[in-house]
Amino acid sequence: MSSAAETIAIEASSAFGILKTLSNDERSFALQAIHDGLKAHKDEILKANRVDLENAIKNELSSSLIKRLNLEDKGKFDSMLQGILDVANLEDPVGKITLARKLDDGLNLYRITAPIGTLLIIFESRPEVIANITALAIKSGNSAILKGGKESYQTFRAMSSVISNILAEKTKVPSHAIQLIESRSEVSDLLNQDKYIDLVIPRGSNELVRNIKNSTKIPVLGHADGICSIYVDEEFDLNKAIKIIIDSKTNYPAGCNAVEQILINSKVSKNQINSIIKSLVDAKVIVHVTDEIKNDILEFKDETYIQSVEDDSFDKEYLSFEIAVTLIDNVDKAIQHINYHSSKHTDCIITENKETANKFLKGIDSAGVYWNCSTRFADGFRYGFGTEVGISTNKIHARGPVGLEGLMSYQYQLKGNGHIVSEYVGAGGSKTFVHEDLEY
Amino acid sequence: MSSAAETIAIEASSAFGILKTLSNDERSFALQAIHDGLKAHKDEILKANRVDLENAIKNELSSSLIKRLNLEDKGKFDSMLQGILDVANLEDPVGKITLARKLDDGLNLYRITAPIGTLLIIFESRPEVIANITALAIKSGNSAILKGGKESYQTFRAMSSVISNILAEKTKVPSHAIQLIESRSEVSDLLNQDKYIDLVIPRGSNELVRNIKNSTKIPVLGHADGICSIYVDEEFDLNKAIKIIIDSKTNYPAGCNAVEQILINSKVSKNQINSIIKSLVDAKVIVHVTDEIKNDILEFKDETYIQSVEDDSFDKEYLSFEIAVTLIDNVDKAIQHINYHSSKHTDCIITENKETANKFLKGIDSAGVYWNCSTRFADGFRYGFGTEVGISTNKIHARGPVGLEGLMSYQYQLKGNGHIVSEYVGAGGSKTFVHEDLEY
Repeated sequence: MSSAAETIAIEASSAFGILKTLSNDERSFALQAIHDGLKAHKDEILKANRVDLENAIKNELSSSLIKRLNLEDKGKFDSMLQGILDVANLEDPVGKITLARKLDDGLNLYRITAPIGTLLIIFESRPEVIANITALAIKSGNSAILKGGKESYQTFRAMSSVISNILAEKTKVPSHAIQLIESRSEVSDLLNQDKYIDLVIPRGSNELVRNIKNSTKIPVLGHADGICSIYVDEEFDLNKAIKIIIDSKTNYPAGCNAVEQILINSKVSKNQINSIIKSLVDAKVIVHVTDEIKNDILEFKDETYIQSVEDDSFDKEYLSFEIAVTLIDNVDKAIQHINYHSSKHTDCIITENKETANKFLKGIDSAGVYWNCSTRFADGFRYGFGTEVGISTNKIHARGPVGLEGLMSYQYQLKGNGHIVSEYVGAGGSKTFVHEDLEY
Repeated sequence: MSSAAETIAIEASSAFGILKTLSNDERSFALQAIHDGLKAHKDEILKANRVDLENAIKNELSSSLIKRLNLEDKGKFDSMLQGILDVANLEDPVGKITLARKLDDGLNLYRITAPIGTLLIIFESRPEVIANITALAIKSGNSAILKGGKESYQTFRAMSSVISNILAEKTKVPSHAIQLIESRSEVSDLLNQDKYIDLVIPRGSNELVRNIKNSTKIPVLGHADGICSIYVDEEFDLNKAIKIIIDSKTNYPAGCNAVEQILINSKVSKNQINSIIKSLVDAKVIVHVTDEIKNDILEFKDETYIQSVEDDSFDKEYLSFEIAVTLIDNVDKAIQHINYHSSKHTDCIITENKETANKFLKGIDSAGVYWNCSTRFADGFRYGFGTEVGISTNKIHARGPVGLEGLMSYQYQLKGNGHIVSEYVGAGGSKTFVHEDLEY
């Protein structure tokens, strides 16, 4: 007998079989219909949202969390609706030819973009995310099983019910293409459904991502850590360095693309090192420095903001107004240090020397390698992807900020006219392959 | 303290850090040097190979295995050497720009192909494979830890020692970029080194692949099963069908791209179904048929070659002169059947109706979707990839026959001049992004 999770996964997988065959118009029409449906049911969705808010207040959740839950905050509902249309209007990611090759007369090979299959997407409590993910999944031809944070349960449920009804009544997209699951125990069962689920996308805390990576054989798209570094070269512009470091650390310290450690070339002058560290202290950042910096370089004392590095200071994601700083001999050592300690998310060099910059860009093994700009640019919207599915520190499949492309795979189509291999060399015959690239 | 496996993995990973920075000329020069070195040491390698052969004979291994071990067989040594030069002469896969975008004045984003990192490659006993894999790894800028079948141990060891010495003495490629490991126990320890190893590529039996997939968190590129199907539509050409089915089944039944099941549209005439099944029997293929075919359609009896389908006949990789045949109502049912039962490797439709073909090509969720040609074309050399790393049934990263591209990832390079996010909308400022694609 199938478990509940297996049933959900089988239904999602078989809905994918139908979704995969729909045209871009049919998929985009479904998004328009969902948009219209959510708009028409705005009142009941906001009513459900108010129940979540009341529960949140009753349970004394933090004010920032309550703010995130609130779908009436600052036109959030309308921008959620607009987001669905924006995704509908993106270029069709399905069926793009990426290789076309004549193997022999009448035997042509094509590589075509295709959806991956069934996605399991686990996200936090911002209720508008469900609309965004639904839109991305349908647009890309993937079916999705969704699990949202329990704080937004009533809102998710109301929206999901509208979405299911709309899909079933007005569109060619099977309603099981988008399924909301409600309990955490179902998630752990679903993580075992590697026969039917092709990719897990967790959008939440690092701990959530790490736990999921440790408990499934299904590929996981995401990042458990964002340990980003900035290396300040000896040939650098102090103003740029301070501007970039302060932005990278303080613009949004909880972001995975915030900088966590600074490596300063040991030939940089004491004065300049003092200026860099002072600017961090002035921005109320706790700076963990090495003994060398503390004893031989720092010309000021500040017992609150200047602290010593700890054993794990260079393997740590502070996610707050804290940072680690050390000196390093040269760019080669900086590359080694970063390749060893960083989480391969985004790392930056500050230098005016192009050759040194190129060495760094070539040597660093991270999803993002930056020159003279803030690590905070590592973001799908800033990259112009229209949307962001997540940021990946994986080294296979999608890497860095992931747009709609990250939800795509490809297939090889081979079109012949009775061609068989035993007529070709290597398989018993004498015919040879043409292997001529075709225009596409 | 590091385990032996951890030490190997750390050394490979740090060798990758250097290999990643080398130019195509430096990598290709290393291949030329390996070619020259293996050529110069031909005598001692063949001597080691003879020890393996003697052991194989002593251990009464099969004659086909002994033939595979023999590096003196049919100019195998020379074609192995030529293979290294062929890989050296392939286009450089590293550093290709695949996206270039102006984010704002002076702030440009580039997506650049880059090697994945450290590969663990587990392969069988054909001794020439070690040269091929070494060439592919170095050309693509990846470091590799290699484990070959124990039957070729002496040959592998002799070749590996030549390769290490050549790398250390004559090239910029660190010798730890290619490491041979010798015991199976090291493999299981290495499968735990997910911090340092980025991709496992098993090239061997399905059981090996399945075991590895079940015992590591590292992504595995490969296929555990090759359950390929052919669907014969009602509007079809009988001669083409028979030709393609016989080739797909009998050209090399042990191949993962051999067909394992035939679905015949139930509107196909009894005569034609008889012809198809008769042609299989004539080719000495055991045909497992449904009761419907056996009782109502077959006009001949053959107790050796005509057998009944079993419970698992449509979920099974025969890998031999055996096949399962059933009738199916229409192309939609065929698509459903295949998406449920196939291993998403390669599936084919035989039809003269273009619309039906397109429905099938669009609906089937496999790496290869074929129209009127043998499933045996699913192969990197036949696709013109110059080389084949393996065939993947994964749905993320590389899919189908995998060439050098499958060993590549990418990185985002962002080049600015003091740009910070807090000056842009959404992060506290008022500047907007340009997002203009650049020529490349």
